[in-house]
Amino acid sequence: MKKAGVLGATGSVGQRFILLLADHPDFEIAALGASSRSAGKKYSEAVSWKQTDLMPENAKSIVVTECKAENFAHCDVVFSGLDSDYAGAIEKEFVEAGLAVISNAKNYRREPDVPLIVPIVNPEHLSVVENKVKKAREAGEKKAGLLVCISNCSTAGLVAPLKPLVEKYGPIDLLTATTLQAISGAGFSPGVSGIDVLDNIVPYISGEEDKMEWETKKILGNINDKGDTFVPLSADKMKVSAQCNRVAVSDGHTECISLRFAQRPPPSVEEVKKTLSEYVCDARKLGCYSAPKQTIHVLEEPDRPQPRLDRNRDAGYGVTVGRVREDPVLDFKMVVLSHNTVIGAAGAGILIAEILKAKNVI
Amino acid sequence: MKKAGVLGATGSVGQRFILLLADHPDFEIAALGASSRSAGKKYSEAVSWKQTDLMPENAKSIVVTECKAENFAHCDVVFSGLDSDYAGAIEKEFVEAGLAVISNAKNYRREPDVPLIVPIVNPEHLSVVENKVKKAREAGEKKAGLLVCISNCSTAGLVAPLKPLVEKYGPIDLLTATTLQAISGAGFSPGVSGIDVLDNIVPYISGEEDKMEWETKKILGNINDKGDTFVPLSADKMKVSAQCNRVAVSDGHTECISLRFAQRPPPSVEEVKKTLSEYVCDARKLGCYSAPKQTIHVLEEPDRPQPRLDRNRDAGYGVTVGRVREDPVLDFKMVVLSHNTVIGAAGAGILIAEILKAKNVI
Amino acid sequence: MKKAGVLGATGSVGQRFILLLADHPDFEIAALGASSRSAGKKYSEAVSWKQTDLMPENAKSIVVTECKAENFAHCDVVFSGLDSDYAGAIEKEFVEAGLAVISNAKNYRREPDVPLIVPIVNPEHLSVVENKVKKAREAGEKKAGLLVCISNCSTAGLVAPLKPLVEKYGPIDLLTATTLQAISGAGFSPGVSGIDVLDNIVPYISGEEDKMEWETKKILGNINDKGDTFVPLSADKMKVSAQCNRVAVSDGHTECISLRFAQRPPPSVEEVKKTLSEYVCDARKLGCYSAPKQTIHVLEEPDRPQPRLDRNRDAGYGVTVGRVREDPVLDFKMVVLSHNTVIGAAGAGILIAEILKAKNVI
Amino acid sequence: MKKAGVLGATGSVGQRFILLLADHPDFEIAALGASSRSAGKKYSEAVSWKQTDLMPENAKSIVVTECKAENFAHCDVVFSGLDSDYAGAIEKEFVEAGLAVISNAKNYRREPDVPLIVPIVNPEHLSVVENKVKKAREAGEKKAGLLVCISNCSTAGLVAPLKPLVEKYGPIDLLTATTLQAISGAGFSPGVSGIDVLDNIVPYISGEEDKMEWETKKILGNINDKGDTFVPLSADKMKVSAQCNRVAVSDGHTECISLRFAQRPPPSVEEVKKTLSEYVCDARKLGCYSAPKQTIHVLEEPDRPQPRLDRNRDAGYGVTVGRVREDPVLDFKMVVLSHNTVIGAAGAGILIAEILKAKNVI
Repeated sequence: MKKAGVLGATGSVGQRFILLLADHPDFEIAALGASSRSAGKKYSEAVSWKQTDLMPENAKSIVVTECKAENFAHCDVVFSGLDSDYAGAIEKEFVEAGLAVISNAKNYRREPDVPLIVPIVNPEHLSVVENKVKKAREAGEKKAGLLVCISNCSTAGLVAPLKPLVEKYGPIDLLTATTLQAISGAGFSPGVSGIDVLDNIVPYISGEEDKMEWETKKILGNINDKGDTFVPLSADKMKVSAQCNRVAVSDGHTECISLRFAQRPPPSVEEVKKTLSEYVCDARKLGCYSAPKQTIHVLEEPDRPQPRLDRNRDAGYGVTVGRVREDPVLDFKMVVLSHNTVIGAAGAGILIAEILKAKNVI
Repeated sequence: MKKAGVLGATGSVGQRFILLLADHPDFEIAALGASSRSAGKKYSEAVSWKQTDLMPENAKSIVVTECKAENFAHCDVVFSGLDSDYAGAIEKEFVEAGLAVISNAKNYRREPDVPLIVPIVNPEHLSVVENKVKKAREAGEKKAGLLVCISNCSTAGLVAPLKPLVEKYGPIDLLTATTLQAISGAGFSPGVSGIDVLDNIVPYISGEEDKMEWETKKILGNINDKGDTFVPLSADKMKVSAQCNRVAVSDGHTECISLRFAQRPPPSVEEVKKTLSEYVCDARKLGCYSAPKQTIHVLEEPDRPQPRLDRNRDAGYGVTVGRVREDPVLDFKMVVLSHNTVIGAAGAGILIAEILKAKNVI
Repeated sequence: MKKAGVLGATGSVGQRFILLLADHPDFEIAALGASSRSAGKKYSEAVSWKQTDLMPENAKSIVVTECKAENFAHCDVVFSGLDSDYAGAIEKEFVEAGLAVISNAKNYRREPDVPLIVPIVNPEHLSVVENKVKKAREAGEKKAGLLVCISNCSTAGLVAPLKPLVEKYGPIDLLTATTLQAISGAGFSPGVSGIDVLDNIVPYISGEEDKMEWETKKILGNINDKGDTFVPLSADKMKVSAQCNRVAVSDGHTECISLRFAQRPPPSVEEVKKTLSEYVCDARKLGCYSAPKQTIHVLEEPDRPQPRLDRNRDAGYGVTVGRVREDPVLDFKMVVLSHNTVIGAAGAGILIAEILKAKNVI
Repeated sequence: MKKAGVLGATGSVGQRFILLLADHPDFEIAALGASSRSAGKKYSEAVSWKQTDLMPENAKSIVVTECKAENFAHCDVVFSGLDSDYAGAIEKEFVEAGLAVISNAKNYRREPDVPLIVPIVNPEHLSVVENKVKKAREAGEKKAGLLVCISNCSTAGLVAPLKPLVEKYGPIDLLTATTLQAISGAGFSPGVSGIDVLDNIVPYISGEEDKMEWETKKILGNINDKGDTFVPLSADKMKVSAQCNRVAVSDGHTECISLRFAQRPPPSVEEVKKTLSEYVCDARKLGCYSAPKQTIHVLEEPDRPQPRLDRNRDAGYGVTVGRVREDPVLDFKMVVLSHNTVIGAAGAGILIAEILKAKNVI
């Protein structure tokens, strides 16, 4: 059992980390960090628990500490659910202190040497930190700090079906996505206001479209020859356009996407569906505990996927694709559904940690 | 005052026609038609009224008749809110009997000699029936039957901003639209099931995408030289791709659209916004009662338009556009909001009738 | 035209005051007060407007001031939508400076000499301030400060049908009410969180049950012989029990109430309905502009009232009652619907001002 | 393993039975019955599956039969999710054919010799069928038909906390309940219309209040001395008043209840809470698989229970009670939450079958 810390443990993402760690076969909760207001209290007293699952017994009596590296020195891995206002400085301190940090914050996603990972999509990008750790160990260092970033939630759903398609049919040069995003991604203090989603949609989420357009190109991009720097796809290789909406859904981001392959002629609809169905993510091959049995579920019903019915497939680690059909403007259009707090946030962090453990990095 | 009949008067669209006619300066309700089950009853007893406005007093005591032309012979115009299962035969009978029918049903929208009208967009297409009526009158006929079709609700919102852009900058050759559609468009017996829109979205509306893709090309298309036949744009002139979703909104369709002009270079974002803002629809110039004061409201707030806040501008006859910005894949993207039961259905029928009256066709 | 000021003008209640004053025949907006953060800005720049009606033109360019009495000295009446954190001190200062304040805040509702008013229910309680003003005028004072409190929103809906019943059949000694309350009452920064009302209800609103139980007894209570002090009903005259829930409704509080008359035998269901239907509130008799044409609408349909369909009757100033029937435990049960931001908040304030004006108090 | 049949297998309740039987240690699905339209098809082809859990593999390939007793002759128990239009005749035929039927339909609930069971409340009422079966076996009959009715969903939540209170403190003579009921109880073809629950509540559910008021008295009532007939509480022993509302919640009925004990003085709030917390239902003592670990969860947080957060406690077999407090009109008020499709419908049927099996009746 590896020892796991959670930063931002009382927040929405932190609570999800704790739930996912509760009965995990590889990790046990060893430290919980939050603001100085919560520090010193038992977790059950510090948190306003808002999950549909009950608070795990093994978290309740842990005394919350401040988010200082010294309090997490005994942790093999630290999951950060920190707000971006705090994540920058704290995560830096933790990595410099030699800790392995897996972060849901946006702060370091665009750093050239930090992997930005959707674990069912680009775990091979973890090689950058793997190499770093190997070198540190060879140099006799006891601990090698490392940082891995979890992608933005809406990016995760978008790139999941792209990966097997690109592997098989080569580059996608044009990509559009219109999202219908759940409110759980916005946390809950205060999160999305009720009046904004009751009989309403908000066609805007601050910073989200830029994140989707940029992160997609890093996740589908390359690593340089030295193996230490990420090289996102350039605009002449791939153009991405996102339109993001907030809707009255609790969990599960629905995305209506269209794409064009560089290769002419493109594959057929049937080939696309077969390729998506047959895709097995590396985490599954590695035997990771949380890896989805079926990475991408391709549905044939005309009116699926739907968030309420399909978001929990493979405990939220599987992505669902439906309505794959030809697109009069680009090549194909389809609907993608992913669970924003599982494969799009905390769950992704857990699966990344499982992969790092399987590869002996942590 | 012209005499107006309403077919399908007890249904969802019929109720909206009756509300809009209640205090109308040009029309008075002269006949209400419904199924034989309702015929013979007072309207107030035949209908299950589900509108947020109260049932108009002047409709309550009208005795509902069956949908036979003889019962509507005294009407100057007949608005049809019939279900498509019945609209085909009944509307045909009415037109053959010399009545002027404005229909919300889909049955005849693709007929080459039937105008398909969004009244704030292509009222010039009414010339086909205007010519026909003129000839009939010249031939001494007392009554010239005519049929005008109202467009599909999601098509209406889509084409509204396109019209002024095409007028000014020439053809749009690529167009994509992802819709977030209100449930009122589906009627209410039973309409959309509660379980389908509670904490959920349904990424599919039967037939809707095809309607949007086809109708757009007729509405933005041409009339032949003889002036009696519509010639929709061909696929090499304009490609349209739609993705339609049902969401938990009562009224108001939100559409995330992208478009590319044939003309290179395209106009600037500022030019596009200015053109949209300055557009004055012909119905307004004709002084029609329901014509919007501002045809297209261009909003600058980053998070607008929103259905709950913006759907009722100009009593639902105005269309709202926001977030006009450059699109990395096509030229521009923007969000369009239109009131699906006003400019997208019954309201459009009323405004069409106002235009026909202004032009002395009815 | 009387000059009206609004305190807390940028907040949710303040925005409603401004909307209701926009085209009012008796009042014109003369001053808008908000926090020092907003002071000095044009209203249109200071406010985050969240109403379904557009911001009135006549409010847009008014420069917001701080909430100091000197800035409102020219006002004939001041409507306070202040948060209770600030209302205490500010309203005190205003009244002491001789201003007439009508407040939606809870701070002074229980003061023995402050009228707590639901304008369609107990306008006779305004006599206490009327007397005070009369005396001050007789004493040659130029201005006599006065304060009137608007009741809690859920109290307003509850007492509306009770008043005519008590007038006709004598005291109600037992009363229970379970509410299903709209989210608009909680304002919007942040107001009710989306995650709390999506596929959920919250069976608790802080302080609400106590307000309903207490305020009902003051509103249905008496004035002492000197005419200057309110004497709420004692527990041995009337027992009230409230259970309050927050539900996913934008506007309109639904209340399931039961009641028992002290008088035995009680009236019949038909008598109760007739009494409710025939009730004409004093404001209507006085010819007040906003007074409802029909104070209480008694509906016979088995499934009404419903908030979406019935909340806007008489522009939200009318209350709707349905399902009046015998109760196996008390005497009668019924469902009451009232518009929480109209008759339950800002609208009540406006109607109170109209009554005060009609009575020459302001 | 006992063999289980399901009637109405394609409907909403039938689907829930199938889900609950999927991995059950005591029962295996042996026959699925539906209308003649579905008969002959594989279940996966006959059903429109609308559950958030995937269709169980072991149900998919079962060929659906018509609901005739001969097709279920091999079943040890038959669960009926039939619509009441059909349940009357079919269930009668099944029982007469010697089958053991556990029905969710309302048809026979009021029969004097048919147990009406909430399995965590009155399993002792099963003695009536137990006796009957025993006699039949003693008489050498191979099969003794029996019928047990599941209570109405809102009744189940209401009586759960009453049982331990009555056991400890004697009769409750006055009881009121106002419900906020989920839409899943209404099925889904069409079920509750979206427009009825979007920004709305419907203060009426046909027949529901009468069911709650009547069924409560049978469930808390007695059996005659011969042990073959149920004797509901009379109105002079217990008066019950229910007010039922439909709200925008998918699963989970919330009920605001008040009650008065016949005994004076009544117990204290703390005693009531302790009694509720300590209650262990008989099914738990019998070791039944689905019996809740904690029958009644008493919550201390002021704003709980909430359907989204609390409905799934003990897999929906546990009931949650919060806000226990004194009531100014009766003795106590509290909020009760129960999962309407588990302990209020199909799940209750399964737990009843487990009890019957534990008692060797089936």
